[in-house]
Amino acid sequence: MKLKVGVSNRHIHLKQSDLDILFGYDLTKKNRLNQPGQFATNEVLTIKTAKSEINNVRVLGPVRDYTQIEISQTDAYKLGLNPPVRSSGHLEDSEVVTLIGPHGSITTNGCIIADRHIHVTYVDKEKYHLPDKVMVKIVGKKPGIIEVNIKPSEEAFFEMHLDTDDANAFLLKNGDEVEILDF
Amino acid sequence: MKLKVGVSNRHIHLKQSDLDILFGYDLTKKNRLNQPGQFATNEVLTIKTAKSEINNVRVLGPVRDYTQIEISQTDAYKLGLNPPVRSSGHLEDSEVVTLIGPHGSITTNGCIIADRHIHVTYVDKEKYHLPDKVMVKIVGKKPGIIEVNIKPSEEAFFEMHLDTDDANAFLLKNGDEVEILDF
Repeated sequence: MKLKVGVSNRHIHLKQSDLDILFGYDLTKKNRLNQPGQFATNEVLTIKTAKSEINNVRVLGPVRDYTQIEISQTDAYKLGLNPPVRSSGHLEDSEVVTLIGPHGSITTNGCIIADRHIHVTYVDKEKYHLPDKVMVKIVGKKPGIIEVNIKPSEEAFFEMHLDTDDANAFLLKNGDEVEILDF
Repeated sequence: MKLKVGVSNRHIHLKQSDLDILFGYDLTKKNRLNQPGQFATNEVLTIKTAKSEINNVRVLGPVRDYTQIEISQTDAYKLGLNPPVRSSGHLEDSEVVTLIGPHGSITTNGCIIADRHIHVTYVDKEKYHLPDKVMVKIVGKKPGIIEVNIKPSEEAFFEMHLDTDDANAFLLKNGDEVEILDF
């Protein structure tokens, strides 16, 4: 089964109360993302830690019930953090960072390394008998096979989300095609 | 078959004539590396391109017959380069960068993304019937299997060299253990 790759650069999801502090206005849409209802915003934040900081980190919309900061292991070394690998919303033992916006700043937990995942509808997961994890084959100059979680939802665009470490390790770009191995 | 991981951060090998221009003195040893005769030096350079630059890039010794700049795909994006994935010394179509040292600067080709490789002696390659490429299994929170070249030499410390993109994608650190799958 073939599918496309979506590469996720570091980004931030915000809950309303944190958005109010950081920006003091609602998120403004920059462009739509492949996942239904999701969009990149014009808003960016600085992630700051005791060791370092990273500027211009994109906020994704819409607002969520939780604030979540998704970084790569490369970012984590730069920031001096040891975030857990997690699915969205599973923020127990996540790392604490300071977010600095134009209107204010907050110090919050919620910093994770996002797990590799494939977006699929509940209907398609059942239809194709997809298990909770699959092995995905990547071809090219640096080939390999990676374990990826299946992440079903009511509405979904069928694609695999990787962070920049995974994408760069395998020389993958947005829209590249990969293959789910027989399971 | 188990073996250890060695993570290679971006680094530079120099030929004597380039060393003379950049530093004007001989390389000074900082610490030994696992591969026989190889060492990290106290010398660092800036890699500069039209788009950006990276400072404090370590020079490894001893001097070689060619100057070679090994970076990751993450670095390549930052520098605006598209280097080929290559074994050491195979520098046809490699990228051109400017190296800036304390004594002078040069603009040279030789910038590559190093291939994933396993150092082994010729004797052990034959003894264990190792093919030219093997699949290596990585366990942990982000597991997978990667294709890795076997790189035999007269003297070698048996270990797998990965760049920081590969290491960070699989959350691997120096000295972690991985397994060569049956071939």
